[in-house]
Amino acid sequence: MQAAPAIQKLLDELERLPGVGPKSAQRIAYWILNADKATAMRLAEAIAEVKDKIRFCGQCFNYAEDDLCEICASTRRDRSIICVVSEPRDIPPIERTGVFSGVYHVLGGALSPMEGVGPEDLRVAELLGRLASEDVAEVVLATNPNIEGETTAAYLARLIKPIGVTVTRLASGLPVGGDLEFADEVTLGRALEARRPL
Amino acid sequence: MQAAPAIQKLLDELERLPGVGPKSAQRIAYWILNADKATAMRLAEAIAEVKDKIRFCGQCFNYAEDDLCEICASTRRDRSIICVVSEPRDIPPIERTGVFSGVYHVLGGALSPMEGVGPEDLRVAELLGRLASEDVAEVVLATNPNIEGETTAAYLARLIKPIGVTVTRLASGLPVGGDLEFADEVTLGRALEARRPL
Repeated sequence: MQAAPAIQKLLDELERLPGVGPKSAQRIAYWILNADKATAMRLAEAIAEVKDKIRFCGQCFNYAEDDLCEICASTRRDRSIICVVSEPRDIPPIERTGVFSGVYHVLGGALSPMEGVGPEDLRVAELLGRLASEDVAEVVLATNPNIEGETTAAYLARLIKPIGVTVTRLASGLPVGGDLEFADEVTLGRALEARRPL
Repeated sequence: MQAAPAIQKLLDELERLPGVGPKSAQRIAYWILNADKATAMRLAEAIAEVKDKIRFCGQCFNYAEDDLCEICASTRRDRSIICVVSEPRDIPPIERTGVFSGVYHVLGGALSPMEGVGPEDLRVAELLGRLASEDVAEVVLATNPNIEGETTAAYLARLIKPIGVTVTRLASGLPVGGDLEFADEVTLGRALEARRPL
């Protein structure tokens, strides 16, 4: 026996969400059914509002509600240092470290010959444009530490260094609080190669 | 640096959902931001539609889109056997077994002196009404195998037996495919007490 059509439709839509399988979809659907209407509608409206209001920042291509994102619009950020990331979702974890006070540039992906993603598919020209017009001293390449991210970082480094801007890359190494015993060999190898005098 | 207000609002609403913590809320929010507008709006509309269309079945108090739920409205269900559950969410797992072809009755909770839930807070009178007016041969008590569920089952059994209707309870025992080694002692004790000749 199938659920009521409206419930089935909700289950189908919930199951599309990342990390939500049939069981959690059911749990969420029954939570929504059980919630008072105002609570459920706040969620529905938050989804609609985000699709309605959010666009790309005109400068860094982060998600933004105005022409510029909150970070580019802030007067307290150091515009001389640009952190380059693949996607807007990579910005919150960096912000949470509290260590970075510069601005960002979102590429919108990473180079992947396998999937046919070339430099023209990323916001590389826009990054070079910023380096030409703004007074930038350093570009931190914070693409992911995987094949595509490393390829993208190497490509950008080759492109940017000749301009005379310092190019740096996030350090690879052992996760803080991690266990040497459980570190994969590539990470441990990088940690050894990048060992520092104490 | 906070996210844009519309994104923050979506994150707050997503974090209310059961089983969704800050990390999965962020993952889902970025999925929604990244999805095309039609896909995101289908989810928002499915939520709104469910709150708009779904009410309680007039007979069994399951969720329903019409006066009766799909199960009560079906001509293929055996109306002489009623399975009593605490919540509508308990019905799909029983349906999925394919073993039960009767109808349901949703109590809307379980007795809990601790939380001040008495028989008058549950749909007990409505169940007795069905037993008086319909031709019911058996009531299966499928409340949860915990203190509240057992209390509710015992209470209903005492109430229904004198009417002359057979009252049964879901069996307790080892989960199929489970490991004896990892069974808790209460479950294993029940399985021993309820051992069957082969």
